[in-house]
Amino acid sequence: MADDKKVTPVSKLGEFGLIEHLTKGFTTVNPGTIKAVGDDAAIIDNKAKLTVVSTDLLIEGIHFDLMYMPLKHLGYKSVIVNLSDIYAMNAEPKQITVSIAISSRFTVEALEELYEGIKLACHNYKVDLIGGDTTSSLTGLVISITAIGEAMPEDIVYRNGAKVGDLICVSGDLGSAYLGLKILEREKRIYLEHPDVQPELEDAPYLIGRQLKPEARKDVIQYFKEQGLKPTAMMDLSDGLSSDIMHICKQSGTGCEINESQVPISEEAYNMAIKFNLDPITCALNGGEDYELLFTITPEDETKVANDENFSIIGQITEADKGYMLVTKGGNRHKLTAQGWNHFGG
Amino acid sequence: MADDKKVTPVSKLGEFGLIEHLTKGFTTVNPGTIKAVGDDAAIIDNKAKLTVVSTDLLIEGIHFDLMYMPLKHLGYKSVIVNLSDIYAMNAEPKQITVSIAISSRFTVEALEELYEGIKLACHNYKVDLIGGDTTSSLTGLVISITAIGEAMPEDIVYRNGAKVGDLICVSGDLGSAYLGLKILEREKRIYLEHPDVQPELEDAPYLIGRQLKPEARKDVIQYFKEQGLKPTAMMDLSDGLSSDIMHICKQSGTGCEINESQVPISEEAYNMAIKFNLDPITCALNGGEDYELLFTITPEDETKVANDENFSIIGQITEADKGYMLVTKGGNRHKLTAQGWNHFGG
Repeated sequence: MADDKKVTPVSKLGEFGLIEHLTKGFTTVNPGTIKAVGDDAAIIDNKAKLTVVSTDLLIEGIHFDLMYMPLKHLGYKSVIVNLSDIYAMNAEPKQITVSIAISSRFTVEALEELYEGIKLACHNYKVDLIGGDTTSSLTGLVISITAIGEAMPEDIVYRNGAKVGDLICVSGDLGSAYLGLKILEREKRIYLEHPDVQPELEDAPYLIGRQLKPEARKDVIQYFKEQGLKPTAMMDLSDGLSSDIMHICKQSGTGCEINESQVPISEEAYNMAIKFNLDPITCALNGGEDYELLFTITPEDETKVANDENFSIIGQITEADKGYMLVTKGGNRHKLTAQGWNHFGG
Repeated sequence: MADDKKVTPVSKLGEFGLIEHLTKGFTTVNPGTIKAVGDDAAIIDNKAKLTVVSTDLLIEGIHFDLMYMPLKHLGYKSVIVNLSDIYAMNAEPKQITVSIAISSRFTVEALEELYEGIKLACHNYKVDLIGGDTTSSLTGLVISITAIGEAMPEDIVYRNGAKVGDLICVSGDLGSAYLGLKILEREKRIYLEHPDVQPELEDAPYLIGRQLKPEARKDVIQYFKEQGLKPTAMMDLSDGLSSDIMHICKQSGTGCEINESQVPISEEAYNMAIKFNLDPITCALNGGEDYELLFTITPEDETKVANDENFSIIGQITEADKGYMLVTKGGNRHKLTAQGWNHFGG
């Protein structure tokens, strides 16, 4: 490239900035395009029911390490990650497409394992594989999945509906998947240095399971239906609570206040964080890959959430000028910082 | 992997065999899944209109070479390739998702060029970009696109509807994109050996254009509507006529007879093939990447196609036991052999 041409490194924009930057000049022309770039999934009006579409691209060495991720688990997780985006719209996934690119080191049997995991996820979540592509790659494995779901128009929940005073809720617990990853990375290092040492995975099956075989919260969406509860905003926790709540606030034009003491952390995660000399709340706020649902509700709906052990109410939506705050156990107020998964390292 | 484990190299199955093999155990469970794996695109019933979904994964070094493919052209072509699949169902594309993985050598400006091409294709074909993903890769550029379209149920054309006696037709001309690629590859070799020599691209703008900036045959689908013509089977020509007609025959349970003298080859392609010491008909049969439409019609519809210069009637559908045959200009009969694009080199 010529010297006089402007060059901006991608890291300067970061992942979210880059996609925003690249797509800002696009406008939509079809009346059926209800929601384009900017949410967990896109919405297309196909008469009575809306079609919900979400897509993900997973690259070996960036999103997964085959040294500790068995191919069957990888196949399962790749699907789950996409279904989670559909549920995060309060919609039901119905179909997926799966494309893969593989280098010559992959055998048919290895790919069968991958597809075993994909098949199991399809079965567990009643989703149909409806297409895809296989091709070769010069280096590692690439997996591209598009998930398609449906919902009645009135049921869809976007990221931009949070209002001041709404309660911020999460399903499950946070940080476990991240600590599972830390264990797997530690064992990989040990293995590379001492191939004869047996890996020590038995002490944390829950954490490792959360990393290797996450589930999407289909049950939460069903619970909402049963309870007649519609969140005001929702997304799935893939990058980490700090980063993800900011998406909701930014799109809703609000601030937020998260109470450290109410952020759900499993006992296993808490103890493992201490063992790794990490702050448990930092793991929960920035760990990512939990695939839990982060949502906001009106105060009137509080009892529907407070009485169910699946959920934690962790804070509330505030006015925009209050910023994004964390209230510590000691009562101090800190600015939340997004240290979520940034695949550009920016 | 242990020695006693069965290992089959992917090349043994080939691209089509592999995806067939990997997906054969899947069944569909949703009544809305009208057509899953096995055609150009998948069909989902969303009440009155059907949703048509197609996806492609493009890998640097496998599907494109940035040394002669400008990024804007690459963006444009990546979209076209997907839209072509939607048209091949006799449907109208309406939305696309685009995901990319990039290595650190890509600048924001380079990606802007890529997206300029994507935007232009969206504009020209009235398609909305509705989602996607950007992430990093350890080596080259990866582009994953899903196209979504719609059609009335009665308009959809599958690959499996060809009947004995049907006429085999193609739009446009064949082999040009392949010869465009040969020129670009030649100039790349020359450049690598003699960087000071100017590339000789001016003598074949049509062929190079067919390779670098193909179009999808939206006009053909519109013509079908105007004429009240519904093909009995259809697909787009991406792998090459020989390979692609076999897909139609295999799925329709038929044979075919292609007449060499009727296969449309542009004068530029013919002359360039001779210059490269290649057989022009071989380029047309096996070249691939033409993105023309290959379709079959009942004999009653012959005049609707015969009278339009966009089309050539190149043969007919025969009984399955007649096989896949090419009738040469000299009247000899040869078996068609599929030497289409096989990204596993098998």
